[in-house]
Amino acid sequence: MTELFPAFLDDLLCDPEVGALVGTEADLKAMLAFEVALGEAAAAQGFIPAEHASMLRSQAASFAPDVLSLQHATLKDGVVIPDYVRQLRTHVGGDAAKSVHFGATSQDVIDTALALKLRDIFFLFEARLTGVAALLEGLLETWGETALAGRTRMQSAIPITASDRLRVWLAGVTQALDALEAVRRENLILSLAGAAGTGEKFAGKVDAVRQSMAEALGLSVPAYVPHAARSRIAGLGNWLSLVTGALGKIGQDVALMAQNEIAEIALSGGGASSAMPHKQNPVRAEVLVTLARFNATQVSALHQSLIHEQERSGAAWTLEWLVLPQMLNATGVALKHAASLLSGIKRMGKAV
Amino acid sequence: MTELFPAFLDDLLCDPEVGALVGTEADLKAMLAFEVALGEAAAAQGFIPAEHASMLRSQAASFAPDVLSLQHATLKDGVVIPDYVRQLRTHVGGDAAKSVHFGATSQDVIDTALALKLRDIFFLFEARLTGVAALLEGLLETWGETALAGRTRMQSAIPITASDRLRVWLAGVTQALDALEAVRRENLILSLAGAAGTGEKFAGKVDAVRQSMAEALGLSVPAYVPHAARSRIAGLGNWLSLVTGALGKIGQDVALMAQNEIAEIALSGGGASSAMPHKQNPVRAEVLVTLARFNATQVSALHQSLIHEQERSGAAWTLEWLVLPQMLNATGVALKHAASLLSGIKRMGKAV
Amino acid sequence: MTELFPAFLDDLLCDPEVGALVGTEADLKAMLAFEVALGEAAAAQGFIPAEHASMLRSQAASFAPDVLSLQHATLKDGVVIPDYVRQLRTHVGGDAAKSVHFGATSQDVIDTALALKLRDIFFLFEARLTGVAALLEGLLETWGETALAGRTRMQSAIPITASDRLRVWLAGVTQALDALEAVRRENLILSLAGAAGTGEKFAGKVDAVRQSMAEALGLSVPAYVPHAARSRIAGLGNWLSLVTGALGKIGQDVALMAQNEIAEIALSGGGASSAMPHKQNPVRAEVLVTLARFNATQVSALHQSLIHEQERSGAAWTLEWLVLPQMLNATGVALKHAASLLSGIKRMGKAV
Amino acid sequence: MTELFPAFLDDLLCDPEVGALVGTEADLKAMLAFEVALGEAAAAQGFIPAEHASMLRSQAASFAPDVLSLQHATLKDGVVIPDYVRQLRTHVGGDAAKSVHFGATSQDVIDTALALKLRDIFFLFEARLTGVAALLEGLLETWGETALAGRTRMQSAIPITASDRLRVWLAGVTQALDALEAVRRENLILSLAGAAGTGEKFAGKVDAVRQSMAEALGLSVPAYVPHAARSRIAGLGNWLSLVTGALGKIGQDVALMAQNEIAEIALSGGGASSAMPHKQNPVRAEVLVTLARFNATQVSALHQSLIHEQERSGAAWTLEWLVLPQMLNATGVALKHAASLLSGIKRMGKAV
Repeated sequence: MTELFPAFLDDLLCDPEVGALVGTEADLKAMLAFEVALGEAAAAQGFIPAEHASMLRSQAASFAPDVLSLQHATLKDGVVIPDYVRQLRTHVGGDAAKSVHFGATSQDVIDTALALKLRDIFFLFEARLTGVAALLEGLLETWGETALAGRTRMQSAIPITASDRLRVWLAGVTQALDALEAVRRENLILSLAGAAGTGEKFAGKVDAVRQSMAEALGLSVPAYVPHAARSRIAGLGNWLSLVTGALGKIGQDVALMAQNEIAEIALSGGGASSAMPHKQNPVRAEVLVTLARFNATQVSALHQSLIHEQERSGAAWTLEWLVLPQMLNATGVALKHAASLLSGIKRMGKAV
Repeated sequence: MTELFPAFLDDLLCDPEVGALVGTEADLKAMLAFEVALGEAAAAQGFIPAEHASMLRSQAASFAPDVLSLQHATLKDGVVIPDYVRQLRTHVGGDAAKSVHFGATSQDVIDTALALKLRDIFFLFEARLTGVAALLEGLLETWGETALAGRTRMQSAIPITASDRLRVWLAGVTQALDALEAVRRENLILSLAGAAGTGEKFAGKVDAVRQSMAEALGLSVPAYVPHAARSRIAGLGNWLSLVTGALGKIGQDVALMAQNEIAEIALSGGGASSAMPHKQNPVRAEVLVTLARFNATQVSALHQSLIHEQERSGAAWTLEWLVLPQMLNATGVALKHAASLLSGIKRMGKAV
Repeated sequence: MTELFPAFLDDLLCDPEVGALVGTEADLKAMLAFEVALGEAAAAQGFIPAEHASMLRSQAASFAPDVLSLQHATLKDGVVIPDYVRQLRTHVGGDAAKSVHFGATSQDVIDTALALKLRDIFFLFEARLTGVAALLEGLLETWGETALAGRTRMQSAIPITASDRLRVWLAGVTQALDALEAVRRENLILSLAGAAGTGEKFAGKVDAVRQSMAEALGLSVPAYVPHAARSRIAGLGNWLSLVTGALGKIGQDVALMAQNEIAEIALSGGGASSAMPHKQNPVRAEVLVTLARFNATQVSALHQSLIHEQERSGAAWTLEWLVLPQMLNATGVALKHAASLLSGIKRMGKAV
Repeated sequence: MTELFPAFLDDLLCDPEVGALVGTEADLKAMLAFEVALGEAAAAQGFIPAEHASMLRSQAASFAPDVLSLQHATLKDGVVIPDYVRQLRTHVGGDAAKSVHFGATSQDVIDTALALKLRDIFFLFEARLTGVAALLEGLLETWGETALAGRTRMQSAIPITASDRLRVWLAGVTQALDALEAVRRENLILSLAGAAGTGEKFAGKVDAVRQSMAEALGLSVPAYVPHAARSRIAGLGNWLSLVTGALGKIGQDVALMAQNEIAEIALSGGGASSAMPHKQNPVRAEVLVTLARFNATQVSALHQSLIHEQERSGAAWTLEWLVLPQMLNATGVALKHAASLLSGIKRMGKAV
């Protein structure tokens, strides 16, 4: 894979757990799950022979596509599916080959595979958000009564307690957790609509096919999801940026509290300087601000992609591919930094 | 008011109905409603004398603040409320003066006034979205069976009917309508939290005060809304951009359908050219794309504002003031253009 | 004109001097200058009778277009010029009428009018930038030797002097001033290219016509500027954001220096709070940050507009109209706030 | 390295040549070049013993840092340099160890290393831009006289020739090439300013040290470049987006020309569809639009980073690290796609 930045930034800026959920293996697994489920649902409704579906399922386990061929073909086709289906058909072999991918189009596979990957990512993020909330509850218990200077417009206002500020931090995290349900419902859906979104190969039975695929894949069937209506993706971007925004607000506050003259917080594990060994830099707090501003920028691209022309826009769709994984990564790494930062709070309020 | 662009762009780019709901008069009315409701709720809980609340209510009707003074003071204070409260106290006069604005801070007034303005704006947008949906239903009925070329990646794919495309357009509008409920619930809330968000002047009775104010103002009381957690504003921006994105997709499709060689749509009221009188430009279709890209840009600023430091960030909050009215205006004018564009469709499908 | 936000925000967020340079009157004046210069240059090259050009010039002084008609027509045509030319022809009357706007198209007028407006705006901004630089030089002289704590990653680093920080502030302003020359050269150009950018009505003499128009209007003739290549507009947006970014950095630093415990700066004219009369809020410093983040957001829209399809994109061009005036306003008001903020610095370094 | 998207998207969305110029090896090489040049310049001015500089130079060739250690340390320190210098000192050994990195700070190394990497990247991009311009010149020669319909606002305007459109495309490329010189001058600079930007360890000789380092490294010495003034980075982002914007405009035009009913262009190598084998999708044209919209989004983040507080902002600086490599990659891959797309034009104008 092409390096986009030096490896030594990996721990600071990347989340390998997210990477494992959006990378090559995860994608291949999700695409294969789609094709197998499609085969069985299509067989159940009589569109393809039952033995073709069985053959596909039994061959699937040993399918190891030639990734380099996929990569070259994607340059030409703009999407991996044509070559992927070709390889899968060759692997399945015989008469069953031609039943593979029955009635589907590239976007059905890609969009459903995204949903499958998101399902795992949402579990990961929910667990981490819950962990961050628990850390905040713990801080509330330990430091809630401690006095802080309330600060508005960067000036001391009236006295508050640490609980007043911690509850604001917690509110951001809780709001993101609360909003996850709707994001899940909108995004964890099956896409099956065929070449131009009309499901034309499935005659009147497209609903039944969708229903049984969704059941097999653990997704839901939307009332109506055309390929070209992308509000759920923009809404997903909004949610990811709400998460990093809530954490970025915490990071900004911590960095301000950690200023030497203010010293309303003590952190363990501050970063070193190459020129000033005595310094303790609140690195994770700063990086939370970075990641919040990063996602706040990216969300714009997903909204530009709402202008998804006609039945499928290569331009708008590919922009989602460039941006969404970056936002998922930024969100994942922010959640890790936040947990680490909050775990390392040794004191809130002035030292006594 | 300072002109930001020439008046002759007003019909193309501005929505006077939205302007009336976010401009000076609307704001003054909403701020006054807050102060009156606060007075009565504070009196009911014994924080201020009942006659002070009555005096405030009776004097409110005749309160006409000196807007130029407000304008000058806002430059100095960064927010209109200190001078507004000063003027209101002078107007109320006597002992009651000092009870005005009891326990509140600028952000309580401004954020609640925004909620009051949004309530009316949401009614307006809901009605317009419903109108656009009805126009699409009408087009479905009239033209649904008409043949169109399905188009993916800007190339002819398989034949579809106009209903296939119209249902995608309708889906975007319906999804925005469906999402409105959550945006309403999150945004139409009372803010009352005092100087540093702790409601410290209301002792243990802040909930009761909030409850009675909310009832009087037709808002709800959130479980917990600190001044500094702004996810509802970012979420509002997301929703506004979902609306313009859905309409921008329609505009983009119409402009593509109206291309001379394709001619799958006929529009009335096309725009003229200064050099080529024969042309019929699909102006509203283009402007829908413009407004969608505009809001897709602005949404980023509202997400940057999530990094709202400490108990109140002048920098982040003021950025909301600059951006949100623009997005509301863009959304309003897009809804008007969409209705006009769809009303003017004289034919879908090739001319016969 | 439609109100986009309450009048009382005008002094805080708007610059009436910029408004006067981009508003209705300024635009009408610039468009008329274009038409008159075109008439004379076209006459000089024999495309229209000399007496038609004279008639146009003499009638121009008394031309007061019906702005409401322009406004309505712009909604239909997407651009003001068709109705503007119609009105101007009626006003000129007689045979000369048909010579008005010879060989030109809407974009020629609008783009050249923008250049004429920018010329004055650049003078204004240059003067203000120079003023800000002079204020910084003054501060260097007065406070340069004062000790400050150098701060990196929000932590005290090594001791510095105020001059170290002031020179960074000055560098931002100076870099913007230095970059103005190229922005001027690229933007202060004559556009004359006709209906589809080919200047087809001027046969082989389009260069001569351009040259004499440019001379009359005080603009330059670009080597080649097609309507659809918009890099100069994106570059202008970049420059405006460089200006507000340099000032936003100053604002952010001042707000941090003004924190109560740090108190490395004393400001006059701080803003009041409605709840805490003792506070002195660094309002202008905060608003400089706001305006920098605003322009940093907007610049994205001007870059989206680089994708200006075919010979003229209504969608991309109109997006420039929505965004550029906002950026000019934000830049103007930031320069005013910066001058005011720097003038009000009463002390740098710790109080002694 | 963490996968951010599936490997099979690599040829479509990544540029391995850029990757090689911004990845681990390139960065390590550039950082080492800085330290060696610093050692020799510091020795020449008498700050460190000459034999220490020689020892550093001779040991440099065999220095193979432990990248995993760098990666872990960067998480803690927020920047790689403290651990890098520690490792380099250990490798050099003896008394010379303590002379390594004399007077420098992390930002000196990172910013100068960026300049060194950019130098090679600019050569690469310049060559590719020149290649794209040559392809356009070739198309002008072959197809310049061919008739096209001029199109404005998505409607047929007046007849033009292919040369009229090709010259617009060429103008975008040429403007980007012309603008490269200033971007180069601003960015290919030596940064040496020490812990808080004051060069305090070099007493009055910092200029001499800078001069000799710059000579050794092939960079220039800026009049004054403080760490915290980032306009050159924002300007670099502007330029990268000008490049992709110019290419995105070409891509958008080609995709529109390739529409079936319009067919004003014929391309070789169109992409296949998994559902419709007959289709020839203009994949590269679409991806050029994607990459232009991507960079148009990212440029906003680099402008947000202009608000670089105090003497060094971890938050703003790290945001540059996240965004700039992405923009460089997008620009590189767009240049490759553009060359490939233009090379594959088999016909302009209607088929005869």
